[in-house]
Formats: sequence, C-alpha cells, structure tokens
Amino acid sequence: MKLQTTDVFDVMRDDLERIDERVSAAARVDFPLVSTLVDEIVSAGGKRLRPLLLLLAARGYVYDRATLITAAAGVELLHTASLVHDDSIDRAAIRRGKPTLNARLSSGAVILIGDFLFAQSAMLAAATESTRVVTIFASTLGDICDGQLREMLDGHRVDQTRDEYERRIYGKTAALFAGAAEMGAVLGRAPSSDIEQLRLFGIDLGMAFQIVDDILDVSQGSQVLGKPAANDLRQGIVTLPTMLYARELPADSDERRLLVELVDGDLTDDLAINELIGAIRSSGAIEEAEVIAAEFAERARRRLPPLADAPTRALLEELVELSLVRRS
Amino acid sequence: MKLQTTDVFDVMRDDLERIDERVSAAARVDFPLVSTLVDEIVSAGGKRLRPLLLLLAARGYVYDRATLITAAAGVELLHTASLVHDDSIDRAAIRRGKPTLNARLSSGAVILIGDFLFAQSAMLAAATESTRVVTIFASTLGDICDGQLREMLDGHRVDQTRDEYERRIYGKTAALFAGAAEMGAVLGRAPSSDIEQLRLFGIDLGMAFQIVDDILDVSQGSQVLGKPAANDLRQGIVTLPTMLYARELPADSDERRLLVELVDGDLTDDLAINELIGAIRSSGAIEEAEVIAAEFAERARRRLPPLADAPTRALLEELVELSLVRRS
Repeated sequence: MKLQTTDVFDVMRDDLERIDERVSAAARVDFPLVSTLVDEIVSAGGKRLRPLLLLLAARGYVYDRATLITAAAGVELLHTASLVHDDSIDRAAIRRGKPTLNARLSSGAVILIGDFLFAQSAMLAAATESTRVVTIFASTLGDICDGQLREMLDGHRVDQTRDEYERRIYGKTAALFAGAAEMGAVLGRAPSSDIEQLRLFGIDLGMAFQIVDDILDVSQGSQVLGKPAANDLRQGIVTLPTMLYARELPADSDERRLLVELVDGDLTDDLAINELIGAIRSSGAIEEAEVIAAEFAERARRRLPPLADAPTRALLEELVELSLVRRS
Repeated sequence: MKLQTTDVFDVMRDDLERIDERVSAAARVDFPLVSTLVDEIVSAGGKRLRPLLLLLAARGYVYDRATLITAAAGVELLHTASLVHDDSIDRAAIRRGKPTLNARLSSGAVILIGDFLFAQSAMLAAATESTRVVTIFASTLGDICDGQLREMLDGHRVDQTRDEYERRIYGKTAALFAGAAEMGAVLGRAPSSDIEQLRLFGIDLGMAFQIVDDILDVSQGSQVLGKPAANDLRQGIVTLPTMLYARELPADSDERRLLVELVDGDLTDDLAINELIGAIRSSGAIEEAEVIAAEFAERARRRLPPLADAPTRALLEELVELSLVRRS
C-alpha cells in the first residue's frame, strides 16, 4: 500500500518498528503450528493507524517512549485479537489478502488464539502500570463486543436508522480509535480537557474510517480489497451505502425485494448479486456516504485541542486524510 | 449440592451474595435475547470456590471488603467467560445440568458473549485500581488460554506424560485458583512471602480440584454430573484416570486398540464405549488418581502460611476438603 510512504509514517517509523517488535514478541506461542499462523496474521499487519494515533496523542505533551510503545502494542494486539474473533464469527476465509486462520484451523483453535491475543494485549496494558489506561482498555473491549453484538443482532435489517448504524460502528471501530487517543493523552499527562478533546477526535476519526471501509466494501473489486467485494452485503450486513440506497427504493419495487432477499440470505444467484451491487454503485449512495465520511473527518479536525504543538497537529491531520483516502 | 450448606459458605454468605450481585450486574447486556441467556448461565452459578478463595486469602490480613468483592466478582466472571468459550470450543450442549448457550445460539454469538464477559471481568479487575491485580488477572487469562490450547493440541494422545497432563490442568484450572489467592493476598496487603505461599496453595488446591473433576467425569453417571458421563473421553481428551489405565495395557492388547480408536474419534458404538468406561472404572486407575489428588490436597494444606489467623486457616482447609469431596 502507498500509505506506508507518507510523512507521518516516516516521522514515526522508529517507534512503529519498535511497536511491531513488541507485538510479535507478545504474540509468540509455544506451539509451532499455531505460532507460525499467529505470526503470519500479526506480521501481515494493518496500517498501524491505532498505535500511531496513540503515539501522536501523547506527542504534544510528555513523550514517555517506552510506556507509549507498550500501550500502543497493546492496542494493536487488541485490534488483531478482535479481527481473529470477528473472522471466526463470520467464518471469513480471506483477510488482508491472505487466508484467515479459519481457513486452516478448527473454529475452537481460532477462538483460543483470539483469547490468547486478548490476554497478551491485556498484559501489555497492565505493563503500563497505569490503572487509567487499563480501565480504558477494558471498557474499549466492552464497546467492541457491544458493536459486534449489535452488528450480529441488528445489522441485518434493510431499514435501520442512521443512529443504529452509527452506534454499531462506534463500538466496532471508533471505540478503539477513541481509546487509543485517550490512552496516549493520559500517558502524555495532557490536561484533562485535552484528553477529552483527543478522545472525541479519535471517535470522529474512527467513524470516518469505518464509513470509508463500508464504502470500499461495496465500491471496490475483490483484487483491491484483499477480500471478496461486497463481503458485508453477501453476509447480510447492511452498512451505510446500502442503507442510503434502500431509502430511495419504493416499498414495493423489485430492487427492494431483491435487496431484502440478499440480506435474508435467500439470494444466491451470483449474477443477481452483482447486478444489485452495480445498482448500489450507480445510485448515488456511495457519493452520499462519502459526504458523511468527510463530515466526520472535518469534525475530527475541529476537535483537535488548540494546545497541541504545530508539527504534531499536522501529523494528526494527516491521519484524518489517511482515513478518507485509502483507494490504492 | 450439599456444598452450599457447609461452614465456609455460611461464614462467608453475605460477601458471596454481594459478589453474585456484582457478577449479575456486570453481565447485564442490552439485548433482551442475549441478556436472558447470559443471566441464566451466570446465575446457574458454580460453587463460587474461586471468589471464596480470593476472600479467604485476604481474611487473615487487611479485609477491604468493597475492593475484595470487586476483584472476586472479576475472577468469577473470568471463570464464566472461559466456560462459555470452552463450551463453544467443544460444542458442549450441556453444562451444570442445563443446556449451554451453544445449544441455543450461533457459534458467533457465543464467541461474542464470551468476549463480552471477558471485557466485563477486566473492567472489574481494573476497578480495584491495583495494577498488580490487573497484571495477575491478565497473566491468568494467558495461562488459561495456554492450558486450553495444550488440551486441544496435546490432550488427545493416549501416551502422555504426567508432566504434560499437569502443565495442561495448571493452565486450565489451577492458574485461576492461584490468581484468585494471589489477588486476595495482594489486596489484603499480606507480606510478600505469604502472598507467594497463598499463590502456591492456590495452585495445589486447583490441581487437586481438577484431578477430582477428571475422576468424576469417568466415575459418575450423567445424572449426577449434569453433563454426559465420560464427556472428555468421548471427545478424545485423555485425562489422568485414562492415562493411568492406559499405562497398564500391553502395547498390542485389544483394550488399548479400542481406547486409541475412541480417542481418535473412530469408535462410535455406544455399547463398546460404555464397556471401555467400565474397564477404566474397574481397573484401579480411579483409586490411583484419587491418591494423586489427595497428595496435591495435602501439599496445599502444608503451603498455608503460618501467619494466617486460626479461623481463616480452618476455612481455607475446608476449601481443600471441598475440592476432594464433591460426590453429592
């Protein structure tokens, strides 16, 4: 991905590498078979946006490198653990362009590996020796579960409200962005109003990020995504672009009937599914969702506390840019 | 069970009830369907031995009731979370005489509910505001996963060593007993040598407890257990009584061949399985395993720090008795 070559990654490269090392070390398991697989999933890595956010949130204040790296590794590992369980829940076979653990291990082993990574991430949080960081960590994990439960129980209705959708993606994604920013600010000993602002910044950034993710799921081909196109929709999960598309459909239209069938799992004809994806893509729903993502991004920018030093502020703004532009 | 009427439960009744309330409150979920099911599994409850051990470990020192109850509720909820995932891993349909969540929810929902309970237990650990308690909590979770991975990956060999078996049940069970005792002693501000002794007490108590569990699995009928008799063996998990039975079988005997077939999942004939269970029961392996459990129990008793006050010491010794005698 081009991402890795932008400024913010250059500036923070050393610390990000140290985080990667901490994550790999924490994910080491005693069993050769499992160890290789866990190592693969961890090193396939993501964009490391969450640990980056944690570091940057502290950077305008006191930058206690060792503790920040510990906390950031914990956040990244918590994210990885939740991906492992998430993949297990929807039995996804591909993630980050590679086969998931599900494709290669029993579901029981995948649950345990996820639990093991949770345990290791909790160890890292505890190693910061900050009870406040640990509390944020635990409540973030609670929020993530809440978001995933909402997705499972409420995500399959074509007519859901924006509020329901937003509450869901808050838990699923924005909570960990918020937690990362808050942990960084807490460890940086930022003034409490700045901690609060940075937490809110994390929320809005995470919301923008997840909406863009949901847009990409519908708008991109499987080659670019590294997972099947319209993966969510195929699983019956209704995200923002689909909601916006559905809102414009007359109650008794064929398109609506088709959409409900797909969401209910009753539509398996690939041609019909591809037509439906095409209809969503050309309906204007994608563009409308992009506007909403941009609004969250703009709100995130306005959340940045005035006190943050100028270079750090620029890097945080770059994170916002990155959350919006993730096409290549 | 008669257990609930013995002395230690009477003496500690008030605090145990407050722990139950904390556990129920923490396990409350926003979704009616899930909430009812979680409530059922939590209130079906177990013997509350782990929270009891935590309380008793502090009782000879500083008894800060509110914090101890918080930590003990965290320990009980961690135990419940791990049972939920454990049941999900082996797809058990019955636990504590009742249908498990598996029998009624998708495996994805069960994974998430387990994660949610983990999150809530971590919140309780964090609420003690003791980084040491949180560290014990996280490393215990790591040990539990390690034990469960070992059971999954190594538990299916008829010829395993006592060491392998003991390492496995340490993670699966004794680690949480040890963690509970250590947390209690830490919160009680016991001298560090007493903390260490109480931790070792917890390990030996937990080992005895798990060996008795493994004995009961083979020796009791399904009515008494509240789950199918020889459940482990039917799943191909080799525990101490089976190991001891196997050790006496000639390499080329029919009995050994039958046992290997059952462990490998190739034996499905119920009559043959029941005969095999009968053979283990009458082989002397059960009695031999009982002696080993009693040795751990005796070692646990000797671990008790001399400083603990006499009434508390008697209650801790009662816990040891309870771990051995659980027939009715």
